[in-house]
Amino acid sequence: MQEDEQKHQKHLCEKVETSHQIIGKKWVALIVHCLMEEPKRFSEIHAFIPDLSKRVLNERMKELEENGIVLRNVIPERPIRTEYCLTKKGTELGKALKAVEDWALKWL
Amino acid sequence: MQEDEQKHQKHLCEKVETSHQIIGKKWVALIVHCLMEEPKRFSEIHAFIPDLSKRVLNERMKELEENGIVLRNVIPERPIRTEYCLTKKGTELGKALKAVEDWALKWL
Repeated sequence: MQEDEQKHQKHLCEKVETSHQIIGKKWVALIVHCLMEEPKRFSEIHAFIPDLSKRVLNERMKELEENGIVLRNVIPERPIRTEYCLTKKGTELGKALKAVEDWALKWL
Repeated sequence: MQEDEQKHQKHLCEKVETSHQIIGKKWVALIVHCLMEEPKRFSEIHAFIPDLSKRVLNERMKELEENGIVLRNVIPERPIRTEYCLTKKGTELGKALKAVEDWALKWL
């Protein structure tokens, strides 16, 4: 392999591995999936995914916020509402994951 | 939620989780990626991915074979050659993962 090609290769490998570290984490693909329709409150996301505890969901939402995939909106109404929505980065991830989801539904 | 909808939801969750258990495992996405071009020998896959040991690659190839994603062909030439190629299930997975890869290259 040429040196340039090797560099490109290493670069690709690192990014692909990072992406699967993010989306390979349990529940992440489903959380992104459920936010694709529309912004949702914490309790709505929780209701969408059976078997996911509030503690773990809370952890995941924080990680997704840190990764710039999810945005947390505090709506100054009474009572105060907190909604989660996907960023542009998150929406594009959701579209990519849709392809994997279709594969899973067909083949697994 | 209706009972039917709940069932569908659980079904979706399980399949999506299973798919991410398969592809979230370190190196799997890259192995599938490199087999998308053409069938390759073990040593060629190994050369394609820096930092992946032969022991782990061997493990992954066995798992991918068991999951019906990869096919191992023994070619009765002299010397005997062993080649790995993607099945139809594997090729379709590769196409789905391409979308995730493009996302990773753009956003990470």
